[in-house]
Amino acid sequence: MTDWSQQLIAVDWGTSNRRAYLLGPDGAVLDRMGDDKGVTSLQQHEFASALAEIDRAFGSHPMLLAGMIGSNRGWLEAPYVSCPAALSDFAGRLVRAEGGAKAIVPGLSYVDGDRGDVMRGEEVQIFGLMALPGAAAGLTICHPGTHTKWVTTSGDRIDRFRTIMTGEMFGLLRDHSILAPLLQGEVEPCDAFLRGVAAGYSGAGLTSALFSLRSGALLSLMPQEDALPLASGLLIGADLREGLSWAGPPREVVVLGRPSLTRLYAAAIIAVGGQARECEGAEAFVAGMHSIRRMIS
Amino acid sequence: MTDWSQQLIAVDWGTSNRRAYLLGPDGAVLDRMGDDKGVTSLQQHEFASALAEIDRAFGSHPMLLAGMIGSNRGWLEAPYVSCPAALSDFAGRLVRAEGGAKAIVPGLSYVDGDRGDVMRGEEVQIFGLMALPGAAAGLTICHPGTHTKWVTTSGDRIDRFRTIMTGEMFGLLRDHSILAPLLQGEVEPCDAFLRGVAAGYSGAGLTSALFSLRSGALLSLMPQEDALPLASGLLIGADLREGLSWAGPPREVVVLGRPSLTRLYAAAIIAVGGQARECEGAEAFVAGMHSIRRMIS
Repeated sequence: MTDWSQQLIAVDWGTSNRRAYLLGPDGAVLDRMGDDKGVTSLQQHEFASALAEIDRAFGSHPMLLAGMIGSNRGWLEAPYVSCPAALSDFAGRLVRAEGGAKAIVPGLSYVDGDRGDVMRGEEVQIFGLMALPGAAAGLTICHPGTHTKWVTTSGDRIDRFRTIMTGEMFGLLRDHSILAPLLQGEVEPCDAFLRGVAAGYSGAGLTSALFSLRSGALLSLMPQEDALPLASGLLIGADLREGLSWAGPPREVVVLGRPSLTRLYAAAIIAVGGQARECEGAEAFVAGMHSIRRMIS
Repeated sequence: MTDWSQQLIAVDWGTSNRRAYLLGPDGAVLDRMGDDKGVTSLQQHEFASALAEIDRAFGSHPMLLAGMIGSNRGWLEAPYVSCPAALSDFAGRLVRAEGGAKAIVPGLSYVDGDRGDVMRGEEVQIFGLMALPGAAAGLTICHPGTHTKWVTTSGDRIDRFRTIMTGEMFGLLRDHSILAPLLQGEVEPCDAFLRGVAAGYSGAGLTSALFSLRSGALLSLMPQEDALPLASGLLIGADLREGLSWAGPPREVVVLGRPSLTRLYAAAIIAVGGQARECEGAEAFVAGMHSIRRMIS
């Protein structure tokens, strides 16, 4: 019988990287590690040694894993829990391995008519956010990233969510498109970014507006360095247009995730007239994993 | 002094491939060749030998070149002609090389306020279309491709145009995105394609609808083989939504380009209540180059 009440390793294992935390009995972070060994960089037979690396880094403790590690491209598949769902639904559906000393948190699915949506990993952050002191009972959450998630909650449950492929689209454009030379560098929430947000939020045709950045640079109609923040703003503005209207009656949006992204989204939400509050994803992840551990201890 | 009135080599040299035609004095195609030596596959010093290959294939004749070969990534840069523009504006602005025996057709630009747009190569096809027997004096043209061009003409001039990056976006998704495994194969104008067109044309959020194809396949909400035609339909539907509204009062759209693409666009235009007529791009290109030759002979 595994004792989950003592030190615990919590792993956020995504598509392109992983982060692991050694948690004390009270949920405090005692140590951490991270690298780019995401699930797509590993073959099935390589997971055992990738897991052993974490054991070596922290010493051997019970391990709770979330994210793409539980997908059909990961280590062990953990079938989706469906919305609406409370954290106890996840705690009851952990997939155990190695005699129970390792457990994978399932992902979350949402079916609306003939349309479906899935997430893996963000749900732990969301439950962690809901467990943080002072969290409201009904939240609209935006989790920006490769696949931005818009989420609504009520009481202790995630009600529904929608994925917008904003980060992946930006990465495709930056790494592989004709716009690539214009899109290198870091995006700041500058004036050009906010002009892009306004255009994207207004419903302007996205791919024609993106192409016009190249034309505009070729024809010297705009400073070349504006192309990157304009492109980012266009994509995020289009994301907000759909996400805010999908989420329903306006209320404060909690923007949850990496600080470099949440500050862009928060600035964009405020620029289109909304209210936004940022919350760091890593902190929420640790709180979520600690909450699961308390349910199974 | 180059004699352009006899046999002529006309080259459509694009980003990713090139096509060359040997034309008789009357514009008839006597011979043709094509390969994947687009401008992005060649270094600057390799253009001389790539040109010599064409000379060897057809014998040495005056050569008229159009497309990305005249861009800043091509062989010799031919500055843009600006809209509105007639074919005579292009004939008067050819960039000559090799003692005049080779000439590059300029591209076309359109500036609307602080927004700009550019094309290289499609303009020759459009003027060729306008020169074909029975062409109307005022056309709405859709030229689908990597960068779909929507164009309006009046009299003998191209008035304005807009680029929508539909084909490039589809290629990025098919070659590099998380949807890639779902997007292999040929698209047919089937029911699933037309459902995608309707959704894209309605203004549904494009990247969330695309992501839902992956979720839908994972959750078995739809046949996996529908993902490809649905994705293509979504992108083309979004393209029509912008292009048709940009072009203005509804009239027949001439869909100009490769038959494998024009049939998809024509089916989509008809499905959203428009009228469409297809015209083969290669035929229009030859007609356009023959028209330029007649102006300079």
